[in-house]
Amino acid sequence: MILDAYLQDPETEALISDRALAAAMLEVEAALARVQGRLDIIPPEAAARIEAAAAELDVDLGALSEGTVRDGVPIIALLGQLRSAVGEGHGGYVHWGATSQDIIDTALVLMFGRIMTLFAARLDDLIAIWATLADLHRGTLMAARTRGQQAVPTTFGLKVAGWIAPLLRHRQRLKDLRTNVLMLQLGGAGGTLAALGERGGAVGAALAAELELTLPPMPWHSQRDGIIDFANWLSMVNGSLGKAAGDILLLAQSEVGEVRIAGSGGSSAMPKKANPVLAEALLALARHNAGQIGALHQALPHVHERDGAAWTLEWLTLPGMIRASGAGLLHSLTMARNLTVDGPRMARNLSASHGLLLAEAASYALAPHMSKSEAQSLVKAACLEVTAERDLFQILAARTRVDVDWAALRDPTNYLGATDQFIDAILEDIPS
Amino acid sequence: MILDAYLQDPETEALISDRALAAAMLEVEAALARVQGRLDIIPPEAAARIEAAAAELDVDLGALSEGTVRDGVPIIALLGQLRSAVGEGHGGYVHWGATSQDIIDTALVLMFGRIMTLFAARLDDLIAIWATLADLHRGTLMAARTRGQQAVPTTFGLKVAGWIAPLLRHRQRLKDLRTNVLMLQLGGAGGTLAALGERGGAVGAALAAELELTLPPMPWHSQRDGIIDFANWLSMVNGSLGKAAGDILLLAQSEVGEVRIAGSGGSSAMPKKANPVLAEALLALARHNAGQIGALHQALPHVHERDGAAWTLEWLTLPGMIRASGAGLLHSLTMARNLTVDGPRMARNLSASHGLLLAEAASYALAPHMSKSEAQSLVKAACLEVTAERDLFQILAARTRVDVDWAALRDPTNYLGATDQFIDAILEDIPS
Amino acid sequence: MILDAYLQDPETEALISDRALAAAMLEVEAALARVQGRLDIIPPEAAARIEAAAAELDVDLGALSEGTVRDGVPIIALLGQLRSAVGEGHGGYVHWGATSQDIIDTALVLMFGRIMTLFAARLDDLIAIWATLADLHRGTLMAARTRGQQAVPTTFGLKVAGWIAPLLRHRQRLKDLRTNVLMLQLGGAGGTLAALGERGGAVGAALAAELELTLPPMPWHSQRDGIIDFANWLSMVNGSLGKAAGDILLLAQSEVGEVRIAGSGGSSAMPKKANPVLAEALLALARHNAGQIGALHQALPHVHERDGAAWTLEWLTLPGMIRASGAGLLHSLTMARNLTVDGPRMARNLSASHGLLLAEAASYALAPHMSKSEAQSLVKAACLEVTAERDLFQILAARTRVDVDWAALRDPTNYLGATDQFIDAILEDIPS
Amino acid sequence: MILDAYLQDPETEALISDRALAAAMLEVEAALARVQGRLDIIPPEAAARIEAAAAELDVDLGALSEGTVRDGVPIIALLGQLRSAVGEGHGGYVHWGATSQDIIDTALVLMFGRIMTLFAARLDDLIAIWATLADLHRGTLMAARTRGQQAVPTTFGLKVAGWIAPLLRHRQRLKDLRTNVLMLQLGGAGGTLAALGERGGAVGAALAAELELTLPPMPWHSQRDGIIDFANWLSMVNGSLGKAAGDILLLAQSEVGEVRIAGSGGSSAMPKKANPVLAEALLALARHNAGQIGALHQALPHVHERDGAAWTLEWLTLPGMIRASGAGLLHSLTMARNLTVDGPRMARNLSASHGLLLAEAASYALAPHMSKSEAQSLVKAACLEVTAERDLFQILAARTRVDVDWAALRDPTNYLGATDQFIDAILEDIPS
Repeated sequence: MILDAYLQDPETEALISDRALAAAMLEVEAALARVQGRLDIIPPEAAARIEAAAAELDVDLGALSEGTVRDGVPIIALLGQLRSAVGEGHGGYVHWGATSQDIIDTALVLMFGRIMTLFAARLDDLIAIWATLADLHRGTLMAARTRGQQAVPTTFGLKVAGWIAPLLRHRQRLKDLRTNVLMLQLGGAGGTLAALGERGGAVGAALAAELELTLPPMPWHSQRDGIIDFANWLSMVNGSLGKAAGDILLLAQSEVGEVRIAGSGGSSAMPKKANPVLAEALLALARHNAGQIGALHQALPHVHERDGAAWTLEWLTLPGMIRASGAGLLHSLTMARNLTVDGPRMARNLSASHGLLLAEAASYALAPHMSKSEAQSLVKAACLEVTAERDLFQILAARTRVDVDWAALRDPTNYLGATDQFIDAILEDIPS
Repeated sequence: MILDAYLQDPETEALISDRALAAAMLEVEAALARVQGRLDIIPPEAAARIEAAAAELDVDLGALSEGTVRDGVPIIALLGQLRSAVGEGHGGYVHWGATSQDIIDTALVLMFGRIMTLFAARLDDLIAIWATLADLHRGTLMAARTRGQQAVPTTFGLKVAGWIAPLLRHRQRLKDLRTNVLMLQLGGAGGTLAALGERGGAVGAALAAELELTLPPMPWHSQRDGIIDFANWLSMVNGSLGKAAGDILLLAQSEVGEVRIAGSGGSSAMPKKANPVLAEALLALARHNAGQIGALHQALPHVHERDGAAWTLEWLTLPGMIRASGAGLLHSLTMARNLTVDGPRMARNLSASHGLLLAEAASYALAPHMSKSEAQSLVKAACLEVTAERDLFQILAARTRVDVDWAALRDPTNYLGATDQFIDAILEDIPS
Repeated sequence: MILDAYLQDPETEALISDRALAAAMLEVEAALARVQGRLDIIPPEAAARIEAAAAELDVDLGALSEGTVRDGVPIIALLGQLRSAVGEGHGGYVHWGATSQDIIDTALVLMFGRIMTLFAARLDDLIAIWATLADLHRGTLMAARTRGQQAVPTTFGLKVAGWIAPLLRHRQRLKDLRTNVLMLQLGGAGGTLAALGERGGAVGAALAAELELTLPPMPWHSQRDGIIDFANWLSMVNGSLGKAAGDILLLAQSEVGEVRIAGSGGSSAMPKKANPVLAEALLALARHNAGQIGALHQALPHVHERDGAAWTLEWLTLPGMIRASGAGLLHSLTMARNLTVDGPRMARNLSASHGLLLAEAASYALAPHMSKSEAQSLVKAACLEVTAERDLFQILAARTRVDVDWAALRDPTNYLGATDQFIDAILEDIPS
Repeated sequence: MILDAYLQDPETEALISDRALAAAMLEVEAALARVQGRLDIIPPEAAARIEAAAAELDVDLGALSEGTVRDGVPIIALLGQLRSAVGEGHGGYVHWGATSQDIIDTALVLMFGRIMTLFAARLDDLIAIWATLADLHRGTLMAARTRGQQAVPTTFGLKVAGWIAPLLRHRQRLKDLRTNVLMLQLGGAGGTLAALGERGGAVGAALAAELELTLPPMPWHSQRDGIIDFANWLSMVNGSLGKAAGDILLLAQSEVGEVRIAGSGGSSAMPKKANPVLAEALLALARHNAGQIGALHQALPHVHERDGAAWTLEWLTLPGMIRASGAGLLHSLTMARNLTVDGPRMARNLSASHGLLLAEAASYALAPHMSKSEAQSLVKAACLEVTAERDLFQILAARTRVDVDWAALRDPTNYLGATDQFIDAILEDIPS
């Protein structure tokens, strides 16, 4: 649909395109031939021919598509093209001892590795932008809001630090994923590597090294937890981006007006509106991937040594998830770069409560002078009488005779607790 | 991905393509102008110009795509192109009193209507093929299987009738959906039709009639239950098709061998295999849409008078669901047409139990001669002694002195109950 | 968890309790015996004994639970208890010709029927409360909000009418569901009713009539679309309730303050807060059921003649969905009854834009005097200059010489379009 | 429902019960008082009183439940009971500087830690049972099955090793989760720890140490990725258990008959059946949790500093997921202990293909004597002529004159490839 346009991005598309898949499959076939040539399992000149042909092959994608309808996998049609290119003599050595799933799954993890690299870079860029903003606004007072209600003072800097924190964990998770997800698949027709006889283990080890992939203790063709781990990461990334977007959407409401996304969307009916469409897209992408991850977990009960239904389900689901994460990261970058923060409006919203936001502060300030529950009752009663003309502190000062610095208490800057330390802790955790 | 090739079909793609969406939006703008011209809300010559321009406009889809990134909707960019085509004087009357969502939602239900027509035809074709098969195989004995275990005799005809039954209900549901889902959307900027003043109701009624859509009591822009109803139907269709495919997958197992999908997929490693790839794809499509429907229900809590996040979520989800249903119906047709039924193998599998499958029959045959629980105990004990050499009836005949026609009891044809009546009831329910 | 307390309700619990299930299963066994006695399939005195025993049986639920672990279904243990109660002679006629699934599925639809009745009554009550509110507030002006931004004026009455509209459709859908979902299940061991010989059809017809259930053309034991239809309805109900709750949550924000749920939740830290916890629970229940419905669709590909995995999945999922809908309806009633509407605050929020909310109105008012696009450009430019001191109309009046009634234009009451007609249409659709 | 009985287990229930939650919350309050007493933030004697009262308090769970309906959280009612128990003087020092979410979230991670310990032990037990079986059956030949079709020979030992492999990864993942998920929550009313003034950081560090939890750089109240990580693990565990169960379900089919679960379920209609109900329950639990994980990801976009809707959604979802994982692990243990393997039947099924299963072996054996594609064509043609009387090797021997050891080729034992090495690699990875 036309709407896809703002739900995709070209760099990510390039990494999950048909052409990228065909290239990755050829890369695996070439590497397989190379290590088998080196190990004298196939003639070295056959290996050289295969490698050269794979590098030069101009894949007929249409034929691959037709092959997929026929065979359930694109690799059989691709092998036909590759064997033709290698030529009669050596063509038989292509794909020696392997099965379709070996090539496709290994090609996919190669693609995943590249996608991880792209997304890691985007995450780093996003963390850097948010970090600058968190630092810049460590003194920008605003209301913390719980359950939709203003609660106590906080700073916009701390809010942004809270958007960074999960992204730092996602960066860390990605490092573990590179090891656990980027695993060689090589099992042959039934997962026994029987066609390679005694040499299966040697080929596996050499191929994993060649492709810089982890060598698993046995083929994982019917063990799909690695796929899930990666997909779960994708959906968590979108979820965390969606959290920031959701906050921004609420802060951008007409009645709140604390932030604005510069250059946002127009309206066909209303000449004055500036719609926060990027933030909305981010929330939609988060909810979309949350739906997808559930569908993907349904592919874990993979039947016997190959389950075409469960395997296909992965490929109905994963490309969309990758696409959504790519778009989510890119839109987040654009949104972060174009975020306009209205500090005075934040301050105005904060002070609109006439001290109610500092009710907790008042309770704790009064507590040394009476019991905590007396303090809370006193404050609670006072809260009910607050008006635009008479703020909480005026009422409390009139009602008590204790020695409290009411002016200091009235200043929200004095009730920020560990705000700065939290921001510092987050900024220090960012790898340079 | 290349794999999409067997998960899509061109007819459905044409109905949900960018071009189809653009055309449907222009169709709504033209109809709006037409009825507003007729009602003298805009000048009749403006209406004529708009209608002509909409009919002729060669939409620049690239510009629509860019517009979507900017505005969150493609319609603003489309309006620009349409107004240019209409020309300076009358261009201002395009989209009179309407808002983006009016045009997009109404265009979408027009598209849905066409998709329903296509899918209804495919359902009818599928029902017809299955009906022929159900009738043909009403005498083809096979084992009914519960919890993976052979249970009692049934016929392949009844199994197929069971695949038809939900499809007949889906056909019936579709009729109700045409009324409930294909509803005009017309609310203006905030759902009040304010820009049309006193004439809002008249325009709505005329436009609904013009487009042959239901007129709802009020605009449904923030009430998305119709969308869910349609999507739920899509996923139910895939689920029912997946049930038949799952049965076929199990019947096609090497050890069962009762059906085969002629012309099925090859294997890159094993020269002899015929893989039931279409049945696997159908099961994957069913599980995929089951995942999507959950995501779509998340769009029901639509915020205020327009929620860009919830609305976008629909459009991240629905096209894929429609695509999956289209492919599911088409693959089911191909699979049904190519299904090869091995009656003798069914009979062989049925008789392999040496009478165990007729244990229930034996209990009921013995029951008139003793208490039911005595009969059951007797049969249960006999079951444990059945061997390839001595079947259940030989054992029971030796153990009892009651007057039972053991030969008739041994014949599974005599234990088919209401099988034929059920098949007839299903075939009679098929509209001619 | 303790938290369940506000996510359940006792009336619903009673209808889905273990005791209710046991009673419904006994009800089906009794009805089966009754019709079989009447049809002389079992001795009339056996039927009478079974009916009496079923009515009096004090079910040992613990034994049922143990039986379920052993058999995968509770019915076998229940049959043991019932047969003991009936006694040696007639006990064998209990459950004649039926299978576990016949009794459980039929018992479940009996339970569904009662749940539908309860939920229909709650829906009616809720519609009635909202209807009173919609009528009462048909003149209460507020801002329509699209994409989080104030858009144009509307009324709180219309907003409430928009909450009613889907509920009316859900009431209508429920009527169809009673026919399509409340279907007798009777197929015997493998769906052929073989144990009833020639009499299967007659027993089915009589039993359906006896239990006031629809008689399907064939047993639906492996066709689960009816279950899905009911569950989809449950999730749609929660989604629509969640939409209203989400609106209320946003209207209750500190900075908006247009509604309040009287008697809402306290805070352990902040003495002054009134948290809209019911609205939050409603949104959580909507998102929860949206997750469940996807899981349930996964049960549609039901294998062969009975699939214990798919069947169990229904029962892992459905009770929670019913519970969530019951709680959702009850919380909605409480919330609706305790909703405090702050009309003056709505008016204040509306006027805070200094005319920007009537920008569309201004464009349409100017359009007769110039081209629409000139009018829009003029208004757009004026919007950018609006300040607290100088509203949109003052600016426009100064910039144009056209004859517009600026005072009338400034009054949002004059820009409500079809608001009242829409409310009337909804109120008229409510069945009395 | 009665059906819950086989979908739960008492040990897990004890860890997620109301009583466990109340105890964990009291544990957190006591530890908070203890460290605050130690740091002289509250009077040491108040700390001592609070600790003693928390240890002795007989919580009134009914009051907690009522409190939850009122407040949206159970902690406020619990604080009332605790403060009463502590008494007038020191009661005010309970919960000093904390907020509801601090206590609940921290209590929950304490509960998670205990659940992880239980599940880790169950995983270890299961791995041990499977490991014995994998080793025992490393020579038990059977057919590898891809896409439902027999493919090549494998061993039952390797199949079981393939069930172990993901469990080993889940054990490893659990270690990382203990660090990343078991994090202290302490942020106070709005996440700033303002009520603790300068001492917030010190209290956090001391409390984390006291409870043996990770200290995060800032409170994670609105960053829920840790929760998701844990839940994703739960669903992955069920998915992997479901994969093994699904294999067993298929192997237990009447027509395959290679395994049986001793002591499996009876049937109400058929006296002879032994239903694999545990395997079915495991598959249902896997699909159930797959549905839940999607719903839980929807809670990631957590609004502002506390989102009651998103938070509640977690608690509508997580207990069921934990329950399903607990039941899944326990049923898997029972199933593994009661699995009866029919080696002769496996061998019989393997040989039923008359050599077709060794078609790949034949191709590779012929390849040195001709081109690979000639070998494949030859074998493919021969496959089509295989009958019960004339196996693949007889046909090939008659058609070629090459020097192949046909007897060795006919023996599947010679075509097992790396089977043994793979089993060894898995067994070596099991921590002792």
